[in-house]
Amino acid sequence: MVLSGIWKKQEGSKPALPQSITVSHSKEIPPRDIQDLCASVGWSRREPELIRRAMANSLAVVSVWDDGILVGMARATGDKVFNATVWDVAVRPSYQRMGIGRLLMEELLCELDAYQIPLVTLYADPGRDGFYRRFGFSVDPSGIRGMFREKQ
Amino acid sequence: MVLSGIWKKQEGSKPALPQSITVSHSKEIPPRDIQDLCASVGWSRREPELIRRAMANSLAVVSVWDDGILVGMARATGDKVFNATVWDVAVRPSYQRMGIGRLLMEELLCELDAYQIPLVTLYADPGRDGFYRRFGFSVDPSGIRGMFREKQ
Repeated sequence: MVLSGIWKKQEGSKPALPQSITVSHSKEIPPRDIQDLCASVGWSRREPELIRRAMANSLAVVSVWDDGILVGMARATGDKVFNATVWDVAVRPSYQRMGIGRLLMEELLCELDAYQIPLVTLYADPGRDGFYRRFGFSVDPSGIRGMFREKQ
Repeated sequence: MVLSGIWKKQEGSKPALPQSITVSHSKEIPPRDIQDLCASVGWSRREPELIRRAMANSLAVVSVWDDGILVGMARATGDKVFNATVWDVAVRPSYQRMGIGRLLMEELLCELDAYQIPLVTLYADPGRDGFYRRFGFSVDPSGIRGMFREKQ
């Protein structure tokens, strides 16, 4: 539960992160905490055992905590060699606009870069691409298009 | 090296698949064979040890063979629970337009569906989205955008 040292204090008018904020790269997050976080941002409920397995099978998981409360998370899947895909970037609403999303992305990309993965991808919700551009992501380079197949 | 039974004979004017075609779901493909296939479609060369590790860390790998020659492959990464991403769909040029791409996708999706993964994603090269629409994929649903971060 330590900062990796790449995070810098937010500039401008945003409130500073509370001193009590800690970061973890452990995949073993209690599913109940993840359920609470997901509910806070309006995501559908997922079963605890499925959450546990998905975290264990992820390539990297970053979580941000404030005094025992999970206030943000992000994770990535991938082959640990050629590519990774970022999923589930979430910050509890009462902790948004403090730089926690940026902290999550910096910590996650730092871990992926340690594997020297050349390609990191993600799917940005509408209007969120500006946030990810800050970390070097671009939309549909060379005409490549993200496609989805969802089963109910 | 057996067909999963979901493949059907091609309709229309395309040539039928040679009887000698076999399908494998093994992740242990000799890297040299993958290098040859990638070279045939103009992809950059990858190191054998990196190929071996990436295949082992993939969620699913499908390969198509003709008399000992690797003529096509596709693979997917993911958390085995909530999502998967399809990568590296390649068919040797002399075997294209025979239905091998369709066979690869059907076999790969069949394996992913066995895990009951609700969301499968991919990044389609320009002009290739029509091919993937046949398997239930759609482009940028709900305004979600695929984004990429590449390191040289």
